[in-house]
Amino acid sequence: MVELKVTNRGVCVPGFMAAGVKRGKYGVALIRSEAPAKASVMLTSNKVKAAPLLVSKEHVNNDIFGIIANSGNANAFTGDAGMEDAREMCSLAAKLLGGKAENYLVASTGVIGRRLDLATVERLANEAARSLETSPKASEAAARAIMTTDTFPKICSVEVELSDGSRYEVGGIAKGAGMIAPKLSHATMLCFLTTNARLEKEEMDEALAKAVEQSFNRVVVDGDTSTNDFVVLLANGSAANDSIEGFQEALNFVTQTLAKSIARDGEGATKYIEVRVLGAVSDSDANLAARAVVGSNLVKSAVFGGDPNWGRIIAALGYSGAEVVPEKITLYVGTKGDERRVCLVEKGKPLALEGTAELKAAEEVLRQKEIYITAELNLGRGRGEAYGCDLTYEYIRINAEYTT
Amino acid sequence: MVELKVTNRGVCVPGFMAAGVKRGKYGVALIRSEAPAKASVMLTSNKVKAAPLLVSKEHVNNDIFGIIANSGNANAFTGDAGMEDAREMCSLAAKLLGGKAENYLVASTGVIGRRLDLATVERLANEAARSLETSPKASEAAARAIMTTDTFPKICSVEVELSDGSRYEVGGIAKGAGMIAPKLSHATMLCFLTTNARLEKEEMDEALAKAVEQSFNRVVVDGDTSTNDFVVLLANGSAANDSIEGFQEALNFVTQTLAKSIARDGEGATKYIEVRVLGAVSDSDANLAARAVVGSNLVKSAVFGGDPNWGRIIAALGYSGAEVVPEKITLYVGTKGDERRVCLVEKGKPLALEGTAELKAAEEVLRQKEIYITAELNLGRGRGEAYGCDLTYEYIRINAEYTT
Repeated sequence: MVELKVTNRGVCVPGFMAAGVKRGKYGVALIRSEAPAKASVMLTSNKVKAAPLLVSKEHVNNDIFGIIANSGNANAFTGDAGMEDAREMCSLAAKLLGGKAENYLVASTGVIGRRLDLATVERLANEAARSLETSPKASEAAARAIMTTDTFPKICSVEVELSDGSRYEVGGIAKGAGMIAPKLSHATMLCFLTTNARLEKEEMDEALAKAVEQSFNRVVVDGDTSTNDFVVLLANGSAANDSIEGFQEALNFVTQTLAKSIARDGEGATKYIEVRVLGAVSDSDANLAARAVVGSNLVKSAVFGGDPNWGRIIAALGYSGAEVVPEKITLYVGTKGDERRVCLVEKGKPLALEGTAELKAAEEVLRQKEIYITAELNLGRGRGEAYGCDLTYEYIRINAEYTT
Repeated sequence: MVELKVTNRGVCVPGFMAAGVKRGKYGVALIRSEAPAKASVMLTSNKVKAAPLLVSKEHVNNDIFGIIANSGNANAFTGDAGMEDAREMCSLAAKLLGGKAENYLVASTGVIGRRLDLATVERLANEAARSLETSPKASEAAARAIMTTDTFPKICSVEVELSDGSRYEVGGIAKGAGMIAPKLSHATMLCFLTTNARLEKEEMDEALAKAVEQSFNRVVVDGDTSTNDFVVLLANGSAANDSIEGFQEALNFVTQTLAKSIARDGEGATKYIEVRVLGAVSDSDANLAARAVVGSNLVKSAVFGGDPNWGRIIAALGYSGAEVVPEKITLYVGTKGDERRVCLVEKGKPLALEGTAELKAAEEVLRQKEIYITAELNLGRGRGEAYGCDLTYEYIRINAEYTT
């Protein structure tokens, strides 16, 4: 077991610099690796893929010097002109940070189907480039620059100390908030991960796929899978580590922390919801069941209202597609640090009925800000999790008013 | 082609009587066939199936005298006691309307996981039985008795005149509102259909499956599939028709009308949304795409806010799982009687951009109460439809406050 030490560097792990500027709707983030890095990416499974994703895909096997990303416009469904705009952003990054356009990856988030305002992107990129540095503050500026309806920046980093005393770091920033659902997607939202570990491309691809499966693919905010979901891992090898011991663990930690932050900051969210399913026939069944519960509008509304209407959780387990035997279900609801505080249902037998202490306790749990729902299906050894948030008036307001 | 004449009988087609009483949360509806009827049913695909559905399934091949249904409690996830309660409801129906318990079907809707208040059901059933009659008013009373968060009763009936001058009728009542989604389900919500046509059981089963596929399975309110979804067709043969010409057509008309009423009356809805997808690779692809659009929280919120943010429709088409080529998509939005009024996107080219007449016209369309979204994928000849409604503050209020 390696030791993971949480740090505050974000993407600014040794050998990486960052910067970000946000002005109104538009923002630009820059990430620069001091040495050419290898890149591994995962894109949305949406059949409508934004131009920056397609351009990044063309560049991914090149030496990567950095990333340029903007908020304010998704540059999605923008045809040939959008492809040119995405390439232009890479050229701009090269002009400001060195190398050639094909040494950069590009990402965008915002409204779909509108041409990017390149002049604004250029102005903000120029401004950002002047403040490029390696510091927690610079990483935070980059994280803030890609925010849209996010209410706080998502940042995480860890240092790994190997048994031989050598070290490397893994860090990342992400943005989330709306149009987020994993079920049809290989990746979700924007997330930029950096590491100074020395890794082979195949090792990176494998580790990233595993990490995304256990982090971003477990987040459900609203069931919509974006055209722009994009996760990037850059590794510049400057730590010169001999072993990649602990890398998967570190990457999982960073991506899970960022994924939970995204769930916590879902559009309009007032409460964080984590669902754990145990005893399923398989892990994939457990994940399916957990996602159904955390994605249910009815469960999400009930949590918002503090209504312990646990029948909706049972219904969601039932339609999830996972193998479920009603008589075997045991159901808990709890809060942080005490995840199985109240047993609502025990092997199919409802305990939290009108007038019971269980129902009263469940009501109290639902007044908390962190709600943990645990379902034991008692059918096998499969385990799964999903992360989400409540569905609120504010979600409706944000999405009824957003843009145009 | 047979002629369909819309009537106002609802389930009270010749040879059928109905009654309904609603007192607060609880309501009881009774439907009685004068002659023993054949029954065809479709149940929810949810793995947690409510007790009344399981009891009805046991009875479905018997001579059916009628249906007893209650609102106020779903009698779902109630174990053996719930099964006894459901059987007790059938006994009660037999006591009041003749025959034996096994000659009745039973249905329930309401909160999940709570024991039924049988005394209340019995009191309301006694009261209803005294007003049993064959009239539009009686059918409406039954439709009102099964309402929960519905704001209006759903009723439809048609008379079929065959070429030989003989006639038969098909009618129905339904309830909907919340916990409604077709995608994992063979049936949705409660719907009771009656006909005096003479039909074989196999003909009924086949016609009902087809009708449900093209009606209730096209409705999405919130993506949640209930434990209690139940569609029943009773045929008592009293019309003594020689041919069943026009039956599928009549049943489709009644079920589609009821399905659209359910979409229109989705919890908290202020607007009806109908999505048509044309030119898909196949009909099933077209239906998949239509459902994704009508089920998208982001599209639903935008329609609520009157925001012509059509990029969200494109994104939903993209993640629907249907084959989609962005450059080929043509997209319209219109209103009743003028379904393709504004072309938003033409073969991948956005027309409704800032400052255009198209965007202004789209804004005007979105101020209407009936929104028709038409997507031409230009890939093949597949066609599909889906029916839904906007996502509103009121949906949240209803579901944050409902019950316990």
